[in-house]
Amino acid sequence: MSTVEIEYCVPCGFRERAVRVQQAILSGLERELDSVRLVMGDHGVFRISVDDETVYDKAEAGDEFDVDAIVREIRSHVA
Amino acid sequence: MSTVEIEYCVPCGFRERAVRVQQAILSGLERELDSVRLVMGDHGVFRISVDDETVYDKAEAGDEFDVDAIVREIRSHVA
Repeated sequence: MSTVEIEYCVPCGFRERAVRVQQAILSGLERELDSVRLVMGDHGVFRISVDDETVYDKAEAGDEFDVDAIVREIRSHVA
Repeated sequence: MSTVEIEYCVPCGFRERAVRVQQAILSGLERELDSVRLVMGDHGVFRISVDDETVYDKAEAGDEFDVDAIVREIRSHVA
């Protein structure tokens, strides 16, 4: 099964956003995953990966942040 | 820095408890940690470790579950 990683910028206060997307991932995919890892980062990072493959990166997505779309993207990687 | 792992039994419905202790850990120790990992498990498991060293295990602690005491124990391992 797969591991999802959510790296977020601590000084930017992105923890709440990271926990929110983690909750959505667990609600939808808990039984299909090995683990979900929150990684403390900085310099504005907010990146989500599945088995080291990036599925969302704030540096590219800008302000666009659709939790449902992110969960669907992750689901397509773990199916 | 350190990695905290929270392994919890999915079929037992321990996710809410895992997320609650994760939140307490992040609130207190976010800037001292590398990551906090939720690991999906089964067979009644609820175990918290810091760099692979167990600091709480439901199999030994039984119904005793003091979140503040767990965070203090983790803090003593990452200091």
